Parts: sequence; structure tokens; C-alpha cells
Amino acid sequence: MKIFAYGIRLDEQPVLEQWGKEHSEVTVDFTDQLLTDKSAAMAKGYDAINVYQQLPYSRATFEALSNQGIHIMAMRNIGIDNLDLKAAKEFNFKISNTPAYSPNSVAEHAAIQMARLFRRTPEMDAKVQNYDLRWAPTIGKEMRQQTIGIIGTGRIGRVLIKILQGFGSKVIAYDCYHNSEIEKEGLYVDSLDDLYRLSDGISLHVPAVSENFHMINDASIAKMKDHVIIVNDSRGELVDTDALIKGLDSGKISAFATDVYEKEVGIFNKDWSNKTFPDSRLKNLIDRPNVLLTPHTAFYTETAVSAMVNESLNADLSFLNGKQPASALKF
Amino acid sequence: MKIFAYGIRLDEQPVLEQWGKEHSEVTVDFTDQLLTDKSAAMAKGYDAINVYQQLPYSRATFEALSNQGIHIMAMRNIGIDNLDLKAAKEFNFKISNTPAYSPNSVAEHAAIQMARLFRRTPEMDAKVQNYDLRWAPTIGKEMRQQTIGIIGTGRIGRVLIKILQGFGSKVIAYDCYHNSEIEKEGLYVDSLDDLYRLSDGISLHVPAVSENFHMINDASIAKMKDHVIIVNDSRGELVDTDALIKGLDSGKISAFATDVYEKEVGIFNKDWSNKTFPDSRLKNLIDRPNVLLTPHTAFYTETAVSAMVNESLNADLSFLNGKQPASALKF
Repeated sequence: MKIFAYGIRLDEQPVLEQWGKEHSEVTVDFTDQLLTDKSAAMAKGYDAINVYQQLPYSRATFEALSNQGIHIMAMRNIGIDNLDLKAAKEFNFKISNTPAYSPNSVAEHAAIQMARLFRRTPEMDAKVQNYDLRWAPTIGKEMRQQTIGIIGTGRIGRVLIKILQGFGSKVIAYDCYHNSEIEKEGLYVDSLDDLYRLSDGISLHVPAVSENFHMINDASIAKMKDHVIIVNDSRGELVDTDALIKGLDSGKISAFATDVYEKEVGIFNKDWSNKTFPDSRLKNLIDRPNVLLTPHTAFYTETAVSAMVNESLNADLSFLNGKQPASALKF
Repeated sequence: MKIFAYGIRLDEQPVLEQWGKEHSEVTVDFTDQLLTDKSAAMAKGYDAINVYQQLPYSRATFEALSNQGIHIMAMRNIGIDNLDLKAAKEFNFKISNTPAYSPNSVAEHAAIQMARLFRRTPEMDAKVQNYDLRWAPTIGKEMRQQTIGIIGTGRIGRVLIKILQGFGSKVIAYDCYHNSEIEKEGLYVDSLDDLYRLSDGISLHVPAVSENFHMINDASIAKMKDHVIIVNDSRGELVDTDALIKGLDSGKISAFATDVYEKEVGIFNKDWSNKTFPDSRLKNLIDRPNVLLTPHTAFYTETAVSAMVNESLNADLSFLNGKQPASALKF
């Protein structure tokens, strides 16, 4: 049995090689190139592929793979919006994704970034880097004194709630689907308006659907406490960037941390240090002392990457053995 | 009744003024100057003083105050090593300090800085500031996967343990005095050697006494795990800076966060941005991408500053009313 993996980064390589050692019945080879209708030829002679990319999986790609006799594809990540599922069906593909590689990675990141903003560490760090060792006026706030509103109580939101409770924060939550544990703890407020009105800090942990497109906008920001801190480690589409910048300019929003941006595709995971930066609004955010931006790396931990590589290769192997992995897509 | 406060910073001023409003029977005035035998004259006509400084309180200072009929002094901080207690006794002074302004402020800071180092946020932040939005190789580790050793289970250490447990870290602890709650949880290891051997991260929360001077030294570092992360938000004297730098150079210590430095007096809380930096070892630390330094600001939160001002003024008032505040020094 032979598996070919596309888009393998340096940090994924040792995990992939270790998996290969532990599965001597399988040959695993790889490239750092992404999968296209052209690069599909690299997988000739293999029985299954393993992938992770933001680039579309097009009809032409599925056709090219199918022509080589490949009909098994395991994705190392969760998102399937770049799949041409109709074509995948046409060419008899079996596909799996990796749904829960590590809720902790994102929840911890959100907690750290929020706590940093309340403590004003970005400002203090910048002073120290400049050898200005004065305290004032860079005084912090304690997490224990804050009410934090969590929007979305899925796997990630619930881990974040535990972390914030460890800090001693008062946690409130909103979700249209109530989780029974969070319900029992009495953390749910009745409406987003209540959450906006009561929260010193707000963290978003909902998927992007049409109903919540730009849910953080002029109107919702107006309902928030003065000097609110917002964290978005979820999806860029949730935040109206123009409204956000207005809120930061006026001081209504005292600080913002984000791991996403509504126009991030094609900008994140690239080096712009010696090029003209392609997006002036994003540059505006990066340049602010009270904004923390990470380029969609909240998930990016050794634990998560290991899980993504191992679980997707396990899914490849299940398909190859004629079984249906738990993460098989239904389409 | 009239109280005169020395060394009042801008961030303390509103708290002091608010206390004054709430105590109309007392007049409170203040200066940003520190207390010396010279500036003692500013308190002429007042009944008590209120202070916070690293500068010594000398015999000459106590004598000058005594000559003006002042024998009451409330300290806004905890440390009393800069007091000439013999002179204070000679001139019949009543003195109080403020022992527990906010264990949360320091514990939260230690947790945030440690989590940041495991997640490698200083490196990722630097990349983003330079518009390099690539992920690799800046991959993080999760707190949930780490064993964290807490040295010292006093008020601060115990709050930190709760925060780390919220993250899901495995916590172990060492203290020559066992706290019953921590004992019940089974967190104590038998020796510092065990703690060094087992910990991915180590945080120091013990006072500086002669027995633990330079407890983090070549020998103890050699006993630690490779790539250990150390946080010192306690006292500079605990760490042999030369041994630490050697450990950072060799990679034995993968990252270090500190809020203190063994030679910090006269360097911290000053602006060196346009001057020659006075300490090459400290500059060495500040300039490293895997070191986070804060200038003794782990305590510096709005909650802590309010408590320091309010509790010390309350102590002044108790003395003035002929009572003994709980925080009165025995000497």
C-alpha cells in the first residue's frame, strides 16, 4: 500500500516519517508542493493521497487523480469549502477530513492573547525592547476582575471557559445551541445583546455562516461596554473590519486580537517583509500597538500538527483496508 | 487629621483622591517626590505620612520627621529591607506595610509569560511586526501538554497553580512548608531535584533568603529537562544570571521570563532609551528573542495599586485613631 502526501511542511515531516516507521506495511512519500491537476502526476503509482491546502481541489484535479487510479484522499484539516464535491462524487472518491485536531490549541491561544491585552503586555514589551523600563502609564488589569463573554460553546469555547475560570474571571456565554454542562453551570445569557452589554472581553468561537456574517459591526459594537477587548480566533467573516477600525479609533474598543482576517487568503502564510504589503486595512491593524495579529496560527501547535498528520494517515489506511474511517465525508 | 503621601505616581493619584473624598474627616496631600531627610520638611504640619520607595528610610529621615512631630508612617508596599528599624524605634515610630495587595497580579503575569514562551508568541509577534506572515518554523506547544513545577506554594504560588490547572497542565510543587490544600491534592514532590527532573516549565515564588541565593545555578540547571522554560517573577537574587545566560546559549534553557534582576535597583523604572544602557548582562537578556523581561511590573495592576493606596491610607487612619492596624510592623 502506497500513500502520497502533498503540501508537507517541515514541521509535519518528522510526524509523517514516524507514522511510516510504525506502519511498515505502508509506503509513505511526500512533497511540499500543493495538489493541482498538474502536480497530481506526482502521485502516479500510489493508492491514496493525503492533503492540506487552501487552494481549491478542482474537477480537473479529481479527474487527473482518477485517471491514475487514485480514489482515496484524506485531508489533514477540517475545512471542506474548497472541495468540488460534485466532481469528487463523479470520479468515485472517498474523502475524509480531520475534524478535532486540538480544541486546546485555539482555546489556549485565545486565552493568552486576551490576557495579554488586559495586561497591556504588547505596550510594555515595546517599551522594554526600546530600553524604556518605566512602569507608568502601562498599568494592567487582572483577568480575575473581568467578565468575559464567550460566543459559541462548542469544543473550543468550552475549553476556553475552563481556562478563564482558572484565572478566576466571571464567564458568561451565548450560543443558539445550549451545551448541557454550560447550561448546568448557569453561564448562558439570554441574548447576544446581554452578552455585549455585560462583557469586558468578548471571544468569538462560532463557525462562519451567512447568519453571522459581520456580526461584529457598528450596531453590535455600539451595544458593548466602553473599552471592550475583542478576540477573534474563529473566522474573519465574523468581523466587519471597517467597523472594528472605527471602534479602535474612537477608543470604544480598547484592544483587539485576531488570528483571522476576512481577506486573509493569499496574504497569510507568506513573507511580505521585503514586498509591498498587499492590504492597507490589515497593515493598519498590524501597526497598532493595541492589536495582536497572528496569521491563522492559533491552531498551530505540535499536538495539533501531530494529530492532523497521524489521524489523516490513519484515515487513508482505513480506506485502503476497505473500512470507513469515522471522519469519512458523506457527500 | 492630615496625611502627607510621598512618591505618588500618576496612576495612584485618582485612587488617593477617591479615598480622600470618602474620608472627609481627613486631609490628604501628596507629592511625586520620594522621602528623604530633606523632603521630610514637606510633611510639616501633617500628622502621618504614607510612602512607597526603594530608596532607604534612614535615621536622618526618621529624625527629621520626628522633629516635626510625625511618628506615623504607612507603607504602600510590602518590602521592609530598606527601613532603618533601629532608628524607627529610637524615634518612636509606628509603621505599617501592605502585605497582600494582589497575589493574582503576579500569579496571572507568571502564567501569561510562561504560556507565551511555550507558544513562542515573542517570535511570532516579531515576525508579524516585520510583515512576515509565515507560520513555520514558529510552532507552539500547548500548556495542557506540559508539566509545570511551582517552587513556593504561598499565596502567589497557589493562585498560579489554579490558573495552570485551568489550562489543564500537570502541576507539581515544592516548598519546605507544605500547604494543606496543595498537600491534599497530592501536588508536592519530595525534593527540588525531583521538581527539576520532571518539569517542562518552572516558576519561582519564594522570598529571597540567604539559603536560596542563586538557587538557579549551573548545578541546578544541569538537573533540569533539556529545553526547560523558567519564569522568575519573584526575586532577582534567586537566579545566577551568568549560569542562566550559559543555559540559554547552550539551548538547555529554551526560554526565560523574568520580572526581576539581581542588580535591578537603579536600573528598573527608568528610561534608558536615549542613554547608554548601564548593564551589559541585562541588555543581553532584553535583546534575546526567547527572553521576556518586565521591569518589576508583575504586581502592577489597577487592582493591586488601588489596594496598596487604600489599605495603607486605612492603616494611617487606624494609627491616627489610636488603633493598631493588622499590618502594623512589630519591631
